[in-house]
Order: sequence, then structure tokens, then C-alpha cells
Amino acid sequence: MPREVRIRIICTSPSNTDVAFSKMKESPGIFPRILGHEAIGVVESVGEDVEEVSEGDTVIPTFLPDCGECVDCKSIKSNLCSKLPYKLSPWMPRYPETTRFTGLNGEPIYHFLSVSSFSEYTVVDIAHVTKIDHVTAPNRACLLGCEVSTGVAAAWKKANVEAGSTVAIFGLGSVGLAVAEGARLCGATRIIGVDLNPHKFEVGKKFGITDFVNPKNTGGKPVSEMIMEMTGVGADYCFECVGNASLVQEAYACCRKGWGKTIMLGVDKPGSQVTLPSYNILHHGKTLLASLFGGIKPKSDIPILLKRYLDKELQLDEFVTHEFKFEDINKAFDLLTEGKCLRCVIWMNK
Amino acid sequence: MPREVRIRIICTSPSNTDVAFSKMKESPGIFPRILGHEAIGVVESVGEDVEEVSEGDTVIPTFLPDCGECVDCKSIKSNLCSKLPYKLSPWMPRYPETTRFTGLNGEPIYHFLSVSSFSEYTVVDIAHVTKIDHVTAPNRACLLGCEVSTGVAAAWKKANVEAGSTVAIFGLGSVGLAVAEGARLCGATRIIGVDLNPHKFEVGKKFGITDFVNPKNTGGKPVSEMIMEMTGVGADYCFECVGNASLVQEAYACCRKGWGKTIMLGVDKPGSQVTLPSYNILHHGKTLLASLFGGIKPKSDIPILLKRYLDKELQLDEFVTHEFKFEDINKAFDLLTEGKCLRCVIWMNK
Repeated sequence: MPREVRIRIICTSPSNTDVAFSKMKESPGIFPRILGHEAIGVVESVGEDVEEVSEGDTVIPTFLPDCGECVDCKSIKSNLCSKLPYKLSPWMPRYPETTRFTGLNGEPIYHFLSVSSFSEYTVVDIAHVTKIDHVTAPNRACLLGCEVSTGVAAAWKKANVEAGSTVAIFGLGSVGLAVAEGARLCGATRIIGVDLNPHKFEVGKKFGITDFVNPKNTGGKPVSEMIMEMTGVGADYCFECVGNASLVQEAYACCRKGWGKTIMLGVDKPGSQVTLPSYNILHHGKTLLASLFGGIKPKSDIPILLKRYLDKELQLDEFVTHEFKFEDINKAFDLLTEGKCLRCVIWMNK
Repeated sequence: MPREVRIRIICTSPSNTDVAFSKMKESPGIFPRILGHEAIGVVESVGEDVEEVSEGDTVIPTFLPDCGECVDCKSIKSNLCSKLPYKLSPWMPRYPETTRFTGLNGEPIYHFLSVSSFSEYTVVDIAHVTKIDHVTAPNRACLLGCEVSTGVAAAWKKANVEAGSTVAIFGLGSVGLAVAEGARLCGATRIIGVDLNPHKFEVGKKFGITDFVNPKNTGGKPVSEMIMEMTGVGADYCFECVGNASLVQEAYACCRKGWGKTIMLGVDKPGSQVTLPSYNILHHGKTLLASLFGGIKPKSDIPILLKRYLDKELQLDEFVTHEFKFEDINKAFDLLTEGKCLRCVIWMNK
């Protein structure tokens, strides 16, 4: 269809979002559907009115659109396209109630996050496609499609971490570690990781984590109190990467008076609420902010992150703990479920 | 005492904070105490180690300190002095458990917000004193000591309102109208005022208010819904100036996705909480921020605001609805209680 691109997927990386949706039995879960939203591929063919990419181009599809035309996409302040607003739709973004996949009996197979990369071929709206230079390591570059970019950009773009600052990160999954990596690149001198899993400190050191707090070992103190004690004044930036509203409150409580920023990245259960004391909001001069994809504008920012990887500044290799053939994708789902991996890369044709 | 300044008050302006404390019977209310925290005066004498001002200088005392020495006062990012942190203390900031006022029988008379300007003479710590050029209109310049500066700076410094933007202001008291004035100076093209008092629209027009919403006349719709309808996309900046946590939620709900900022200025009851939906925080890319005194750093910013007044950019005259002799200060308290004034100026020796 016009403005759509058919992509041959080279590598894709499952995430906890895919796992969660694979287990959902009710809306927004829907079946049959092709999951997967972090990938790299090669353009196989393009529909009418697609000039930005052509056959053979290497591309990264993204769940967040970047139409390039609306006031949001044209503004440096927003990454929330208002022409094709992000939604959890099972359809194509520009042609609702249509799918590009069909089953053996002609029945529709639904899309996921406008990407559906657990497939040899997928069709993606051009607003969701970022063209990149050909890369020799698709099993690394594919990570820029979601979690790693989200974390790195949350530090780099959304929080704009200053050199010399102190950062606290609640939750050291891939997103949290990517926040550390982003903070390290921004020159943060102290990066405090918070996680229930004691092994995460060793893992985190590779990404610049300098201090570790295990909430199980605080002698009953709230983590915010521990971080206040460790820093004296609180962290300049606190990132919540678990998806737990009460942790947002903890993060807010230990970010520095006067200029502290609390950045929310985790996805909590539907209906959850963040509650903050009015007095503290007013008297402590802190800021609460968040953004999907860490504030990434896909078409302009992903090539920047890729260049930083190729220039050996941004670490991507260290995020990949496992690589599998597509037929073994369920092993990746198991590892994610058990919390025993960072990113697993799936090769579609190996 | 060292680092203290004795000031002869020329003009002072009571505010709702003074009224509220005058009625309090329990802590943090304390009696006998000299209220008043928005004023202008002349230095009568200085203690040791005061070099910044000398006898005869015109000064504005402020509730918020600016010691000029701590990391916060030296940083452009913070206005919350960490050496003499703001607190609701009945004592002198640098010499706790001492007062500079005594009653007829030698009993202590307590201070208020480090200013206590409802007095012919007061003693103020040098960190709370801003030196300004001599002015011929002390009955205007005194307004820069609290509410007007708070509102103007919230738009100018804290929110950094961009030219051409849309602003919504919840509550059109002096602070809310000063936000409008600040937004007007920043070049906002649409300024929506929200107030239960229908007369506020006429008053607000002087300060740049272009649209008015009376929550009583929305046909039962939440104000946020009205503002979404009026703007299509929400306001770029929403200011809460009432002191009602649920209005912060309304303001947050109608600030623009992608880049909207909600700025909290109102003081709610102790213990009140602001509750926001996690989903919206994460998916809408909005920011919640606040700061005491609108982010003003007294010693550097008040002279800037004064210059803008003298250059006929910043309106101050329009805020003064009444002037009284000190002996009639209770009339000002009555007008404030009834909501029938903006700023009342008290001349101490007229």
C-alpha cells in the first residue's frame, strides 16, 4: 500500500513487552498476532509515495513513528508524532482495520506495535522506518530499535545528564543498564544502581555503575533514604526503569533539591497512579518527566547512536548475552521470563 | 549581630500567607510574632561582616535566602540556598533560638519568614536582603518581594515560556495575574485564565489574559476538557496558582502532549498529595515542575525585574488596588480575606 515498506528482517530481539503480550488473553492482547518490535532488516520493496528508502536499504523499524510532517515531528521538543499517534493497534497505522499478514485460510493475522518483526518479512509504515547505513553487525545495530536506545536517550536527551553529576537508576534490566551507559557517555561521575538481583552490580560495572544498592540489604530503610545517605544531598537524576509507581515516589524522594530530575521509564500496570506530596513538589524544586522511547526521534537520533557505536563510544556488544536461530526464539522468551539475559538476538535466516 | 541588617521599612504589602498565619492557633503559628514578608526599606545599620549593603541603601528583604556562597546559590539551576535553607522558623536564620524583637517585659517576639515587615524597624539576615537602586516608587517596588516576582518568574525563569505559545493559568489572584504578566512579557499569544470569580476576566485583560474559563459555567465539564476543546491540543504551559492538588491534576491533564509543562505555584494544605496516572506520565511526554519564589534568585533577579519595571515593560502599578497607612492594616487583611483586592500597599510612616 502507499507509504508502506516491505522489510526482510535480518535480526530481531525479543523484549519483556513481547513476552507480556504473548501471555495476554484479553485486550490489548489479540490473537493471532506477530509480535516483535526491535529489529533490523533490508528493504525488499516499497509502496507508492515512498521516496525515503528503496530496495536494498538497511533499515530499523520502530514502534514510535516519525512522520516528519506534523508539528511534533518538526519540533525538537517532541517525539510524539501527532499525525500517526502511537497506539497499541493491531492494524496498520495509516490504514486501520487492515493487516498485511494473512493465515493459511485467508484470516487476518494482526500486527504489533507497527513492527511485527518475528517474521521473515513484515510490512511497516514509512513513518516507522529509519534508514541507516549498511552495517556489518546487524546483531548489534538491531538493539537501537527499542530498549537500549530508550535508556541511552533518557539520559542523553530527556534528562540531559551533565558531566560530573550523580545518577541513580532503579532497576538494572536492559533499559536501566542502557541509562547507565547513556549517563556514562554524558560524563556522570557517580552512577548508583538499584536492583534486587545481587549479580547486577558486576554486570552494571561494564556500563559505568559505580555503586550498588540492593533493597533487600538496607536493614529495612527505604532505598531513597540509603541514597540520601550515600550522596548527602540526593542524586541529580533518578531514573525509574522497573515500572512501579511507588518506585517513582522513591526516586523523586532522593533526587536532589533545587534541580533534581526524576525520569520515568518503566511501564506500570494499567490504572496505576504516581502520588507525590504537594509540599515536596513545591518546596524542593524538583522535576518529574518522562517520555516514550527516552525522547528519541527515530529518524534523526538512531543514526547518531549508530555512529557512536561505530566510533566505539556507545557499547552495544555488552548488551547481547545470547544469540539464537529463529527456531529457538522460545529459549529467548524463557530467558527473559527468568530474568537470565540482557538482550537475546534472533537471526532470522541462520 | 554579625551578618545582620537593621532595616527601616518604607512600604509593605500583606498577603494571604500573612492572613493565614494570623489566624493560626497552633504550630507553625506562634504568638506573639511580627508578620509581613513583602516589603521595601532603607538600611538603618549593619552588623559585623556585612559589606554588601550600608546605611542608607534601599533594600528588598525576601523570605528566600541567597547566601551567595553555597553550591545552590552559586548554581544557575537552583534557587534553594543550602547554607541557610528556607524554613518557617520563628528565629533568626543564622542564630536559632534568638529573636531581635522583645516585648515590653522583655519577652521574645517571634520572626516570620525571616522578614517580619509589619514593623517600623526589622532585622534581617544579609542572605535575605537584596540591594536595589533607590526608587521613587517604593509602593510599587515593594511588590517584587514576593507574589508578583513569584508569578512573573514562574513564567519567565521556571517555565521559560516561549514566544507564540499558549498558557493556561488556574487561579487569578495576584500570583496568577503575575504569571499572566510574565507570560505576556515572554510573548505568549494566548493566555487562558481560570477563576470562579467572573470579574477576574476584566482584571486579567490588563495582564494579557485573552480567554477566560469559569469552572461554574462549563456545563459540568472538567476545566481540563474545556481547555482541550478551546486549544485542540492543550496548553503549552499550565500554572496552578490556587493551592489545590486536584487542580494540579486538571492542569496536567490539559497541558500539551509532547512538550507540555505543568508548573505548581499554589500552597495546598499540609499532607495533600498530587496523584497522576502512570500511563499518562509515561506516554504523554509532559513535565511537572515547581519552585519556591518561581525560581527567583533574589539578589540577581529582583534587580532585573525592577529594571524591567522602570523601563515600562513589567507592569506593577496595575497590581496595587489599595494603599493604606499602617494603622489601617486590618483593612487590607479584611480585603484579602474577602478576595476584594489584588495587592494592598501599607505605608509605614505616612
